[in-house]
Amino acid sequence: MSSSASSNPSTLSYEQAGVNYDLIDPLKVAAQRAAAATAGHLAGHGFSEVKASRGESAYVVDVGPFYLASIVECLGSKALVADEMKALTGKSYYDSIAQDTIAMAVNDLITVGATPLVVQAYWAAGGSDWFGDAQRAQALVEGWKKACDTCKVAWGGGETPALAGIVEAGRIDLAASCTGIISPKTRLSVGDNLAPGNAIVLLASSGIHANGLSLARKLVERLPQGYLTEVSPGLSYGEALLAPTILYSPVTEALAAAGIAVNYSANITGHGWRKLLRHASAQTYRIHTVPPVTPVLKFIQQHAQQDDREAYSTLNMGAGFALFVNAADAQRVVEISKAQGVDAWVAGQVEEGPKQVVIEPIGVTFGTEDLQLR
Amino acid sequence: MSSSASSNPSTLSYEQAGVNYDLIDPLKVAAQRAAAATAGHLAGHGFSEVKASRGESAYVVDVGPFYLASIVECLGSKALVADEMKALTGKSYYDSIAQDTIAMAVNDLITVGATPLVVQAYWAAGGSDWFGDAQRAQALVEGWKKACDTCKVAWGGGETPALAGIVEAGRIDLAASCTGIISPKTRLSVGDNLAPGNAIVLLASSGIHANGLSLARKLVERLPQGYLTEVSPGLSYGEALLAPTILYSPVTEALAAAGIAVNYSANITGHGWRKLLRHASAQTYRIHTVPPVTPVLKFIQQHAQQDDREAYSTLNMGAGFALFVNAADAQRVVEISKAQGVDAWVAGQVEEGPKQVVIEPIGVTFGTEDLQLR
Repeated sequence: MSSSASSNPSTLSYEQAGVNYDLIDPLKVAAQRAAAATAGHLAGHGFSEVKASRGESAYVVDVGPFYLASIVECLGSKALVADEMKALTGKSYYDSIAQDTIAMAVNDLITVGATPLVVQAYWAAGGSDWFGDAQRAQALVEGWKKACDTCKVAWGGGETPALAGIVEAGRIDLAASCTGIISPKTRLSVGDNLAPGNAIVLLASSGIHANGLSLARKLVERLPQGYLTEVSPGLSYGEALLAPTILYSPVTEALAAAGIAVNYSANITGHGWRKLLRHASAQTYRIHTVPPVTPVLKFIQQHAQQDDREAYSTLNMGAGFALFVNAADAQRVVEISKAQGVDAWVAGQVEEGPKQVVIEPIGVTFGTEDLQLR
Repeated sequence: MSSSASSNPSTLSYEQAGVNYDLIDPLKVAAQRAAAATAGHLAGHGFSEVKASRGESAYVVDVGPFYLASIVECLGSKALVADEMKALTGKSYYDSIAQDTIAMAVNDLITVGATPLVVQAYWAAGGSDWFGDAQRAQALVEGWKKACDTCKVAWGGGETPALAGIVEAGRIDLAASCTGIISPKTRLSVGDNLAPGNAIVLLASSGIHANGLSLARKLVERLPQGYLTEVSPGLSYGEALLAPTILYSPVTEALAAAGIAVNYSANITGHGWRKLLRHASAQTYRIHTVPPVTPVLKFIQQHAQQDDREAYSTLNMGAGFALFVNAADAQRVVEISKAQGVDAWVAGQVEEGPKQVVIEPIGVTFGTEDLQLR
């Protein structure tokens, strides 16, 4: 992420917050190559992979009557904020944390056009005693169930290991796997129909969601009252961070029910708006309207002294999900999203041109040198 | 596991090794209830769950032309043994550890009759630097790929988060999700045809596999040379523990190809041979032949001063997987398994009677009070 580094020495960047992609990336590349080499096994079962899904947010297999999509996703470090806030307020936030975890999986799975069907829980605690806090455990179960209800997925089961010596004492490593189908097969959305003239519709985020938390946690050291510093009157920084991630599958399912084709989608998570460059094709994404920035994100940008370029390259800045649709459908997409309780904006369009996202209202452009995901 | 407690005060039991199921079980029960209540969502997509799969090792959904099975499974603490052995020998054992992780998922998925299709990797490290050890990272990737090749599954992708503050520094939390299909639908194996007269075929384990490691690690304190203590000439305790878990899907796929029906199966993991009681029905499982005990398991039993009851209730004792088949097929099952390189024995039969497993050669019986999995 070096290309997004600010020249302001007071700026708190993502690297300073402790994640070093230079160390992880060689392994990722080796793993991706090895993984790609296993695709041929599917032929022995009479199936084949959808090659374009390699490098996308979910992996897709053609199993005949429909496509099968699957994924595993982790929450990341957001649970640490819940732990700190519990110590400060006595309240358990694990119902929100549960929703965040499912959102990480479901919001990725739906990008390829899948209907999520089954979620499995992976809750790895630092010791058996984690599960002995009945209030917290109950909040986790209830939040998980509620998120499944929202997404209309079956909670299949899962694992609740006690991993002393691997997971830190008093902590929990939360992840979710999700399996879904793409049916009818025309719902497959890996960018084949992404083209100049498409409209870009952005769906509102609820706050930081579950990406950028390393930065957000690091920032606490700079705040006069830490997590209890007010973001807006009556709303602490910690509470604001813990707003649960929006689940977007009700929107994508409603679009399918309305017969609206989605040509491509991007879940705006790590790397912020650079995720709009996710698809491999060379096209320009011109943004004429940016959503209002959620107060907690504005607060982070301000206190981390990030310029717009740094902020939009790291955080979702009010837009949690992007849909690339035919221009004629754009306004209906906004209406359908709003009917599902998710604010939305026709924010821009796809144009012929070099691969870049041009965010006109803030004068920021990200190019291919800013995002290496594959 | 209190019912399996030994009266010998020198015995090292599983509870003493640090896993307290009394703290985890209430959460598990609450989660299982909440999960079961989400099954109805599938109807909205035109599908339904296979109710009998609740409480089984994988969750099954009827999606029309076939069944869909999915699962997430974690390795547990076996990676800690690899870390210790690396410090002692300089060798990376993460190729074996990778196979163990996939085995945890695949060997569970196949119990319901599924053909595993896609594996996703979940590698959550204590920091970016974990991935900076190129030798170890490469071993993990290569072992993962090789296990996928053995199981003929596509490695779809995965997550490689750096979770400082959640996962301990220098450690890694390894898990795998697996999705498969049951096709033709007659391969569904949730015990409907499990009946008196069925033969019980046991498949060989390679060692401790990935269950009982807390006990095995605790035991090191009692050994004169720790992990380097010899189990047999030239084979250290650490090396013996790190024998990778056998992948059983080549056997179950070969059985299906040969047209042999499997009425039920049990992956013999935690709770050892009590897993033979896994199915809910009330039947007696009479064992007349026990496989030879793998040297490392015999060594553990001896040094942990466990009697046979304790050992067989905790460890696999040489049998990693159990197949319940029609008696007429039993000998062919053994032959097909051996042809896949996995030793096997016709070990006993299902009989009318109270729910219990009677292991005649060692005079041990486990009843329903010994296993509460649901």
